[in-house]
Amino acid sequence: MTVQRILIVSGTHGNEINPVWAVKQFINRKENSLNNGIKYEYIIGNPAAYEKGCRYIDVDLNRSFKESENFDQHKNSFYETNRANFLVDEFGIEGSKPCQIAIDLHTTTANMGTSIVMYGRRSKDFCLAALLQNKFGLPIYLHEKDKSQTGFLVEAWPCGLVIEIGAVAQNFYDQNIINRFSIIISSLREEIDKLKNKLIELPKEVVVHVHQGSIDYPRDEKGDIDGIIHPERINQDWKMIKKGDPLFLDSQGIIHKYERDQLIWPVFIGEVAYKEKKIAMSYTKKEVICSKKQWVQEFESF
Amino acid sequence: MTVQRILIVSGTHGNEINPVWAVKQFINRKENSLNNGIKYEYIIGNPAAYEKGCRYIDVDLNRSFKESENFDQHKNSFYETNRANFLVDEFGIEGSKPCQIAIDLHTTTANMGTSIVMYGRRSKDFCLAALLQNKFGLPIYLHEKDKSQTGFLVEAWPCGLVIEIGAVAQNFYDQNIINRFSIIISSLREEIDKLKNKLIELPKEVVVHVHQGSIDYPRDEKGDIDGIIHPERINQDWKMIKKGDPLFLDSQGIIHKYERDQLIWPVFIGEVAYKEKKIAMSYTKKEVICSKKQWVQEFESF
Repeated sequence: MTVQRILIVSGTHGNEINPVWAVKQFINRKENSLNNGIKYEYIIGNPAAYEKGCRYIDVDLNRSFKESENFDQHKNSFYETNRANFLVDEFGIEGSKPCQIAIDLHTTTANMGTSIVMYGRRSKDFCLAALLQNKFGLPIYLHEKDKSQTGFLVEAWPCGLVIEIGAVAQNFYDQNIINRFSIIISSLREEIDKLKNKLIELPKEVVVHVHQGSIDYPRDEKGDIDGIIHPERINQDWKMIKKGDPLFLDSQGIIHKYERDQLIWPVFIGEVAYKEKKIAMSYTKKEVICSKKQWVQEFESF
Repeated sequence: MTVQRILIVSGTHGNEINPVWAVKQFINRKENSLNNGIKYEYIIGNPAAYEKGCRYIDVDLNRSFKESENFDQHKNSFYETNRANFLVDEFGIEGSKPCQIAIDLHTTTANMGTSIVMYGRRSKDFCLAALLQNKFGLPIYLHEKDKSQTGFLVEAWPCGLVIEIGAVAQNFYDQNIINRFSIIISSLREEIDKLKNKLIELPKEVVVHVHQGSIDYPRDEKGDIDGIIHPERINQDWKMIKKGDPLFLDSQGIIHKYERDQLIWPVFIGEVAYKEKKIAMSYTKKEVICSKKQWVQEFESF
């Protein structure tokens, strides 16, 4: 079996409105939903939150795809738990309109540029991510081994990537950001077509930034945030830092520095939505991975 | 009587966090609350919304200072109605800690720069606004005669201005924005000191941008927004537009243009928080007002 149906999700977080608009433009202006035998399904992940202009109603939808928990009676009263179940029932690989691939479009208030987020080291994901990196030079954030952050949407599909573009404010339309999503949607369709027709060769290697954990803001005795991202650190996502580099500036004017010996590359620096998760930034380290034939083979044999 | 106590409010909207931080830094680092016989009271306008990182809990606090309505039984169940009553009871001119002046610090996602908002044409407000404009060249948005937008905080005090700084995203700390608030707070204190000591002369005139009304986004048949601010219009606050200039770009790619003959200067272009108020931008016209001696006289005789 090859790829027959692909799910494109926007508005998984209701206040990330640019991908929703990009999809709307894309559908209205350019192409129909059928392409080279592949059917594209476009859906708003969290329509209730999108309607209200907030990230979510009860809980973060993009942490709600946990098979074991979604039959929990208490959590079943959450809007997002039900929505996650609906999306899997409808578009999951065993759903009524089974999709082999899910692409989840997100924005961030951090200055990440156009980037790819992978969850774990699945061959099919590597295949798609490698092609996009090769085409555009996009950085890849490989999220793995973090027990405090699980239940991401794309993990519920056999293959799936997050496209994460920033910096852009929540609920703020930005034509440049919208254009970047349009280009990515078009390119993904092209690359998947070529893959289906066996017209593609992978690059020799991919560069990934592997998640190492996250750090919180400085806090005062009441637990309130008492430090902003240091002016030298804000908007410097993907840039390496070393021991002694500034991280935060507190209300007393004291600089809080990075104190470890290991070189790290921070991402999601100052992401507004992560304050409630007590994440001021996440640390990554750089890793070069040689491409494997298996990536394409697995992709071809869905 | 002269000025004895001044109220500085930050966080009237809970997701406008930079002024709150600026005040925190200001109090921690620089000066105490007593200055030249004037006592400064610093308060977070909407602490419950600030805690949650949202604009408000039930209704917009900065539309809740309506004397006639605040004894309405239904509205009295709103958190913000009670908070407005509390602030007036505590810091109003007849309150337990009577303040003669209220300064309300706001941020906007629109590219307004550092600006002053006045509500109506009160002499004392003109006096302060003229001094700040003279010192920094700040633009003044004079809001008046709009029955759909009333109940602003500073209107409940005999003298009061809003300081509105942007562009900055909601809930996002930006040191540049914070610094601008610090400068404004310091300068206001200096100017008020000089006024109190009769050491000041007003500029000959002030330039104001007078509110003419607001326009909504294009909408589809369901009432959903179907147009973003045109790329040539976004971030162009305070810049004059004329007939034929682009305003919006809809999902079909159609440009919606400004169709009136009158020259206008739009402000709050694309302000995220105003979508729920169905405001895509507000129109102003420019007016030059000659300074009056009465402005200082009234200020001196609080």
